[in-house]
Amino acid sequence: MKTYLDCFPCFMRQALEAARMATDDPNVQREVIDRTAGLLPTIPMNANPVDIGRLVHRVVRDVTGVPDPYAAVKKESNDLVLDLYPELKAKAERSADPLLTAIKIAGEGNIIDFGPNMAVDRDRSVERMVSDSFAHALQEPLDPDGYRTFQRRLADVSEILYLGDNAGEIVCDKILIEELVKRGKKVTFVVRGGPVINDVTVVDARYVGMDEVATVITNGSDAVGTSLSDCSSEFREAFRTAELTLAKGQGNFEGLSDVPGRIFFLFKVKCPVVGRETGARVGTLVLKEQALEKVAK
Amino acid sequence: MKTYLDCFPCFMRQALEAARMATDDPNVQREVIDRTAGLLPTIPMNANPVDIGRLVHRVVRDVTGVPDPYAAVKKESNDLVLDLYPELKAKAERSADPLLTAIKIAGEGNIIDFGPNMAVDRDRSVERMVSDSFAHALQEPLDPDGYRTFQRRLADVSEILYLGDNAGEIVCDKILIEELVKRGKKVTFVVRGGPVINDVTVVDARYVGMDEVATVITNGSDAVGTSLSDCSSEFREAFRTAELTLAKGQGNFEGLSDVPGRIFFLFKVKCPVVGRETGARVGTLVLKEQALEKVAK
Repeated sequence: MKTYLDCFPCFMRQALEAARMATDDPNVQREVIDRTAGLLPTIPMNANPVDIGRLVHRVVRDVTGVPDPYAAVKKESNDLVLDLYPELKAKAERSADPLLTAIKIAGEGNIIDFGPNMAVDRDRSVERMVSDSFAHALQEPLDPDGYRTFQRRLADVSEILYLGDNAGEIVCDKILIEELVKRGKKVTFVVRGGPVINDVTVVDARYVGMDEVATVITNGSDAVGTSLSDCSSEFREAFRTAELTLAKGQGNFEGLSDVPGRIFFLFKVKCPVVGRETGARVGTLVLKEQALEKVAK
Repeated sequence: MKTYLDCFPCFMRQALEAARMATDDPNVQREVIDRTAGLLPTIPMNANPVDIGRLVHRVVRDVTGVPDPYAAVKKESNDLVLDLYPELKAKAERSADPLLTAIKIAGEGNIIDFGPNMAVDRDRSVERMVSDSFAHALQEPLDPDGYRTFQRRLADVSEILYLGDNAGEIVCDKILIEELVKRGKKVTFVVRGGPVINDVTVVDARYVGMDEVATVITNGSDAVGTSLSDCSSEFREAFRTAELTLAKGQGNFEGLSDVPGRIFFLFKVKCPVVGRETGARVGTLVLKEQALEKVAK
């Protein structure tokens, strides 16, 4: 996805929020704002928002000296959803269509995101947000065309590359992955190569026991999404040869929406710009196949 | 009011919105973003947001070459509320307390504002927003202490300095001013000295016939609110000697909240930062007396 002008004020807001996570010192927070403001004019309009986000969050780390401002928040989110795991797992298993329910659970987990401006949710605790959300999620319909196409593609493959997104959400991903494993699929779960916002790293994958159900690899990049040029050659090879990729979250959509491949995107639409790109309203859960076919292997 | 770090991303957003009002050329819009980003690091934290807004909107005018990007929008807003005038006027006159109702109408008119980020309302037309708003406004309670204090102060004075805010809203102001005139008060209505966002200038005052009920003067400044140091000496003298000032809108509150004087602020809270300053939630109508007494005349 290309960068829109709307992304520029949003990057300033993200920088400020991350700075506040890292430090209470207003002078340091101000320095983050100023350095981010200095960065923006250097960004070409054909840059991918995922790459800009990477630069912005590097500024936050450089200026504050805090390598992982969201470390505590990530642990809290993981603990919160781990507590819900038995209940969510039972809901998936007891439902008429466990795969569909698990997709909805994994999709709904994507609300646990500290990147976009979820203004409505700032006043609510994460606990409240998550419990409200799951209460409604399973009643909400999911685009039947998207689901049917996903089922069809799934029947053709034995392995799935699953691109993770956020802490907390990863527990929901595990429920979906367990459903995939039951269907005989081998799953590789991909985490970010380093901390950025509340995105999952290998620390979160271990913490929630993802390694018990999937092979866990990193993409070698600390971008807020998947920016192939910033990823390790090992990850790029895994992506190039994947039979089917399931990319969670808006950041992975932003990074891969123009990349050919057999990819499904599963995410909640969180900003008007992505809403425009997908034709879905903010708040909608999207399961969408990449329109572009994979280039020759 | 002082500037908060939250104001910095908000200024970027304001600059972008104003740039889009002025031109469809994405390169020019981008230049506005870049010049605004360049401006932000130069701003001291003790600056008033009203002064920063003035600089930001000057950047928009300089870069786009459009002196009044919101000219068409202002005329539309005025026409829209002029159409509602007979109905609103009748509601005030027929109500049990015409002054209270007129204050609510004038206060509710303050929603017609293109400055703050009224995210919820971006999807609705101005027509829809205004009609929805007035439908509820007259049922909503207004802080009874604020109103009682205002009535008491009003009884003591013969003249009122009324600081206007936005186009469209000015028609609602006229209804309140007519109620004040009925009570024997002489009103001076103040407009901005030059165009900025959709704030009223002498053009709007004439268009809606404000000069039929009040003396219209300008404050000599194109700030988005009242920044005394940027105002003409004539306005500053009028403000210094005013028996009672009624300041409409968040921008006038931001500019004058730390200035001693017999001032009432009447506005809708439109951002979390002003919400924190006033102790009122976003969306609330506030009628609030300035806590600081006027310094020696």
